[in-house]
Amino acid sequence: MTADAIGRVAVLGAGSWGTTFAKVLADAGRDVVLWARRPEVAATIRDEGHNAEYLPGIPLPANITATADPAEAVAGADAVVLAVPSQTLRANLAGWRDLLPSTATLVSLAKGVELGSLERMSEVIREVAEVDEARVAVVTGPNLAREIAEEQPTATVIACADHDRAVALQHACSTHYFRPYTNTDVVGCEIGGTCKNVIALACGLASGLGYGNNTMATLITRGLAEISRLGVALGADPLTFAGLAGLGDLVATCASPLSRNRTFGERLGRGESLREAQEHAHGQVAEGVKSCASIRALAGRHGVDMPITNAVYQVCHEGLDPRLMPGELLGRARKAEFA
Amino acid sequence: MTADAIGRVAVLGAGSWGTTFAKVLADAGRDVVLWARRPEVAATIRDEGHNAEYLPGIPLPANITATADPAEAVAGADAVVLAVPSQTLRANLAGWRDLLPSTATLVSLAKGVELGSLERMSEVIREVAEVDEARVAVVTGPNLAREIAEEQPTATVIACADHDRAVALQHACSTHYFRPYTNTDVVGCEIGGTCKNVIALACGLASGLGYGNNTMATLITRGLAEISRLGVALGADPLTFAGLAGLGDLVATCASPLSRNRTFGERLGRGESLREAQEHAHGQVAEGVKSCASIRALAGRHGVDMPITNAVYQVCHEGLDPRLMPGELLGRARKAEFA
Repeated sequence: MTADAIGRVAVLGAGSWGTTFAKVLADAGRDVVLWARRPEVAATIRDEGHNAEYLPGIPLPANITATADPAEAVAGADAVVLAVPSQTLRANLAGWRDLLPSTATLVSLAKGVELGSLERMSEVIREVAEVDEARVAVVTGPNLAREIAEEQPTATVIACADHDRAVALQHACSTHYFRPYTNTDVVGCEIGGTCKNVIALACGLASGLGYGNNTMATLITRGLAEISRLGVALGADPLTFAGLAGLGDLVATCASPLSRNRTFGERLGRGESLREAQEHAHGQVAEGVKSCASIRALAGRHGVDMPITNAVYQVCHEGLDPRLMPGELLGRARKAEFA
Repeated sequence: MTADAIGRVAVLGAGSWGTTFAKVLADAGRDVVLWARRPEVAATIRDEGHNAEYLPGIPLPANITATADPAEAVAGADAVVLAVPSQTLRANLAGWRDLLPSTATLVSLAKGVELGSLERMSEVIREVAEVDEARVAVVTGPNLAREIAEEQPTATVIACADHDRAVALQHACSTHYFRPYTNTDVVGCEIGGTCKNVIALACGLASGLGYGNNTMATLITRGLAEISRLGVALGADPLTFAGLAGLGDLVATCASPLSRNRTFGERLGRGESLREAQEHAHGQVAEGVKSCASIRALAGRHGVDMPITNAVYQVCHEGLDPRLMPGELLGRARKAEFA
């Protein structure tokens, strides 16, 4: 595969991150077809050049077209970007499997560990699409969609077991504001991208309880430590967690008032029930609420201790009063930091 | 040294951190004497039980007294806490040297690398007080003073080459809201505590230029990488930088709107001159402005590459337009993140 092997790209999913990544690819000179589930969303993008619902106020380049027909979207694509929610990826992809071009790179924007199977998104893709790991890439890093859409300078990570394929994708999405780095550690990049949502939820809980930056910084520090422990147990390179896909993504998500997970946690911390917080989030439950359950199960399977994830799980799914969480965490005696 | 060896403590310096740490020690049951340079500050603390100037609104415990006489402060102290600005520590300590009890633990709250000598604060203390490294401890971590003074739960690090002495100090300052961990890596803890001010200044610059959380997260990630490189070159344990004294302190300082360094950088990023920013900061220049020069010199001596610190130095001391800084940093080509 040569560096300029990717000319035409299908982006399946027109939420804020899918639409933003379509813009990045188009700004990098690729022909992009964006698939939206709802025909009216596709029509607005095609006819008015913007995604009013998920990325209002951002004009999309002319080399993006849109469709609600997945066959039309993926026809002739050199890369197919999967930008649907993680817990629906398997069902969506099963419907698209027979349409996929036989050599296309499959790119995951989704973050998560599937409930039930406890598979990472790249594992779901390999299984459902019946492809080798060399065909699957992951995009992750400190990437708040809205800031990228506004063309703020952003670094990201393109992870693929096949380094040449990662380089081709890097080439396909490099712009003056979007700077991708390659990494071959897919496991580490996916675990970083998934687990950060739970820690962001914990930071939101702390903020809702009235705690400030000392507590947030401690949660991020100890959170990264438990994420790294899980990743290493699954075969990841520990160095990945010190980089953009680990620390970088974690800090961007935890510090941002734009983060859905953090906002959701804040509502719980202020005393709202899961149902009330969900109503305030337009009926959506934050990703971290679901993934804390699958991550906890995965950690359990591998004998990894994840106290913050566990506390978030207890708050979200076992009715623990958030006000008891600090005690739950600080009660764990450790006298030397690295004992 | 037994764990309860510290009964009486002198805190020399009544700024916000010195006063806060005096409160922590007093809340942990120690008898504390707080020294203030100005007699009127000492009088207010003694007579009214609060530090109106540096910690307004926080009542101080009755077991804190205050004085402007250093001899009175240190008489009979089991530990002497040095809480004066880093660039004045040498001169202050030279004046106190002959007063120091002969076995007291000397505790540094100051962060910095001295201009000229390029010594860390613990090195200055050892040299001026003529004591062995086992007598000198450092307190550092994600410790915004105001939040601790409000009794928000906070983790910190007590570093000392003598583990028993670190444990005694840990015992002397443990409260329901302040949780110290011990570490024997004094070099790593001091380098983390010093360099974070420069990265916070860089985050402020980026914020002042209008950049958001993606950029901040990238600066924190790459900032921690360059801090670790310097620390390791000086003999620190790389693990320290993944912990509270590295990542934790860095995140708390960079993310906080309370951080003087971040606020100062924001002013520079918005186009104010160094002089204008200094006027807005009540005549004070942020610590990072001074320490970027000494850290850069120390890095140069050890052949360590610190691009963010270097860019901050150029903005503060060589007139680089902050708007050219992103180009200065993003222009550095690196295709794989960990190449």
